[in-house]
Amino acid sequence: MVSAGPELRKDRLEGRWVIFAPERMNRPHDARVSPRPSPPRSCPFCPGNEGGTPPEIAALRARGSRPDGRCWRVRVIPNKFPAVRPDAGKFRSAADPSLIRPAKGIHEVVIDTPRHGREWPDLGAAAVRDVLRVCRDRVAAAERTAGIRHVQMFKNKGFQAGASLSHAHTQIIGLPLVPDDIRREALRSAREFRREGRCPVCRMLETERAEQSRWIAADRHFAVLAPFASRFPFQTRIYPLRHSASFSRSSEAELLSLAVLARSILARLKRSLDDPPYNIILRQPPRPAGPEASKSGHWSLEIVPVLAHIAGFELGTGMFINPVLPEEAARELRR
Amino acid sequence: MVSAGPELRKDRLEGRWVIFAPERMNRPHDARVSPRPSPPRSCPFCPGNEGGTPPEIAALRARGSRPDGRCWRVRVIPNKFPAVRPDAGKFRSAADPSLIRPAKGIHEVVIDTPRHGREWPDLGAAAVRDVLRVCRDRVAAAERTAGIRHVQMFKNKGFQAGASLSHAHTQIIGLPLVPDDIRREALRSAREFRREGRCPVCRMLETERAEQSRWIAADRHFAVLAPFASRFPFQTRIYPLRHSASFSRSSEAELLSLAVLARSILARLKRSLDDPPYNIILRQPPRPAGPEASKSGHWSLEIVPVLAHIAGFELGTGMFINPVLPEEAARELRR
Repeated sequence: MVSAGPELRKDRLEGRWVIFAPERMNRPHDARVSPRPSPPRSCPFCPGNEGGTPPEIAALRARGSRPDGRCWRVRVIPNKFPAVRPDAGKFRSAADPSLIRPAKGIHEVVIDTPRHGREWPDLGAAAVRDVLRVCRDRVAAAERTAGIRHVQMFKNKGFQAGASLSHAHTQIIGLPLVPDDIRREALRSAREFRREGRCPVCRMLETERAEQSRWIAADRHFAVLAPFASRFPFQTRIYPLRHSASFSRSSEAELLSLAVLARSILARLKRSLDDPPYNIILRQPPRPAGPEASKSGHWSLEIVPVLAHIAGFELGTGMFINPVLPEEAARELRR
Repeated sequence: MVSAGPELRKDRLEGRWVIFAPERMNRPHDARVSPRPSPPRSCPFCPGNEGGTPPEIAALRARGSRPDGRCWRVRVIPNKFPAVRPDAGKFRSAADPSLIRPAKGIHEVVIDTPRHGREWPDLGAAAVRDVLRVCRDRVAAAERTAGIRHVQMFKNKGFQAGASLSHAHTQIIGLPLVPDDIRREALRSAREFRREGRCPVCRMLETERAEQSRWIAADRHFAVLAPFASRFPFQTRIYPLRHSASFSRSSEAELLSLAVLARSILARLKRSLDDPPYNIILRQPPRPAGPEASKSGHWSLEIVPVLAHIAGFELGTGMFINPVLPEEAARELRR
C-alpha cells in the first residue's frame, strides 16, 4: 500500500503539491554547526571519503585524476537521500489520480570545496566562480532533461537553514511540474510585460537605482537590492543588469561578478548579524521557457539569513511579518 | 521617511503582502524553553505582573476581582509588540500607492493560564475549554470589527515554533485584507461546491472515514485526520463533523470536545516525538463570509509539530518536502 519511491500529492483545496520522500527520514545529521568545525572523520563530502557517496556525475578535477578519487575542486553527485528520483514509479492507487503522481526528477548535490568548514566568503572569488560554473552547467543539463518542468537551485548553510551536513554544498532539484508560486509569478510578469511593453524587473531596477534607499551594491553585470516587500529581515537579491530569464545562460565574466558580489554580501551578513545560518536561492521562471517567458522573466539570486522561525501566523495565512524595513537593511549592508 | 506604525507592502510580481512591524524588533525573548521551566521573575504573563502588560481587554476572573489584578483564569491583552494596530496611519509616500498601505488591524494575546510552564496537555479539559471559549469570543469580536477582512488565531509553543515568551498563550490577529492563500482556497472551495453541490470538506470527511488510513480519532462533534497532502510530518487537523464555516459559532459542547481532542493529540505528539515545539492554527474562510463562503468553507484547527527547518527549496518553490506519509503519522498517533 505504501509506495516505494517518492511521490507528489496535491491538496485539492490549497492547490499545492507536496513531495513525500520517506527515504529522507534516514538522512545523516551532523547537526551542531560551530563557526570553525573540525571535520568529522565520517564527513561523506570530504576528500578521501568519495567512496561513501554515489558515483560522481561531474567534477572539476586535477588533470589525470580519476572520477571518485581525490584531487577535485568541485564535485557533483546524486543526492543519496533524494526528494525526487529519475526512476520514481510506483505510487498509491487508492486516491484520486489527479491528486497523486510519482516524484520523478533530478536531485543533485554540488560539493563546493574539498575544504571542510569553508564557506563562500572563506574561499577565493575564483573558487566561488568555479562552484557557480559547475552549478550553471548542471542547471542547464537539468533544463534539457525530458520531463523536467522547473529547476530549483539552492544552498542551505547551517542546521537552522535546513542543512543536514555542514560541509559546504549546493543542491539542484529538477521537478516534473511547475510549482504554483512560480507559475503565478511568471503569469504576473507576463501580464506586466504586455501592459508596459518591457520586463518589469528591468523597469524596477531603474527605479530602484534612482531611488537608492534599497540599493546596496552594483558592478558592470549585477545589482544587489533589499527587495521592497522583503519577506525576511536582511533578505537581498542579486539581479543581472542585462535582461536574462535564465541563470544557465550566464557568461564566465558574469559568473565571476556574481561570485564577487555574493561573497561580499555574505561577508557583510556575517559581520552585521553574527554569522547567521542562511539560504541562497535561485529565482527564475520555469524552464524551458517559451519566447514570452524569456522576455518577461528575469532571474535573480536571493540570499536569506535565517534570523527568526516561521510561526503560526505565517503557516496560517502565508503572509510574513518582517520587523526590519528593507531600507534599514540596505543602509546597514551598504556600510 | 520611515513610517511610525506598521505597514503592509505588496510584491508586485509575487503578489504577496508582507507586514512590516519594526516595533517587533524590541520584543523580549526568554528563548531557551526547557521542559519544566521555572517562571522567570519578570514573566509579564504571570500573576502579580499584570501591571507590566497593556490594560486587559477581557478575562475570566474570580467574582469581585478587578481588571488587571490577580485571580484570573484566562486573560486577554493587546499585544505589546503588535504586527498590526488599530491606529496604524502614516506610511511611506514614495512608493506606488497600490503596493503599500497602513497595517491597520487587531493583535491580541490570550494568556491561557496563570500557571507558568503549563501547556494544554497539563491543564484539565475544562481549563482548555475556557481558553477556547475566550478565543471564540475574541475571534467573534474581531470578525464584527469594521475594516477587518480576515481573522487568524494561532498558538506558538516553544522558541523554534516562533514563541518569544514561554508562558502559554494564544494570539489573534485581525487583518485589513484577505491573505492571498486564504482567498485562493476559498475560491477553490466555492468552485468545488458549485460542481459537487456540497461542501468539499464534508465530502472529504466521509471518504476519509471510509478509507481509515489517515483517520486518527473522532467523537460526536469532531474528527482528527492526518491530511492527505500534509506539508509537515505529523501535521493533523481537527474538523467539526457538522458543516460550519466559522469557529466563532462553536457551541459550548463543541468547545469541550475540541479541548478534549486537542489535548489528546498534543499529548500523543509529546509522547511520540519527544515533546516537540508546535504551532496550532485556526483555518477558516475569510470573515465576514458571504452566504456562498458559508456553504463551501469548513473550518478546522491544525496542529503542526516543528520537526524540521524550512530550507532553500521551500523558500524558492513554495513546495514542501515531507519525509513522513500521513498514513504513517496516523498509524503512530492512533496507538
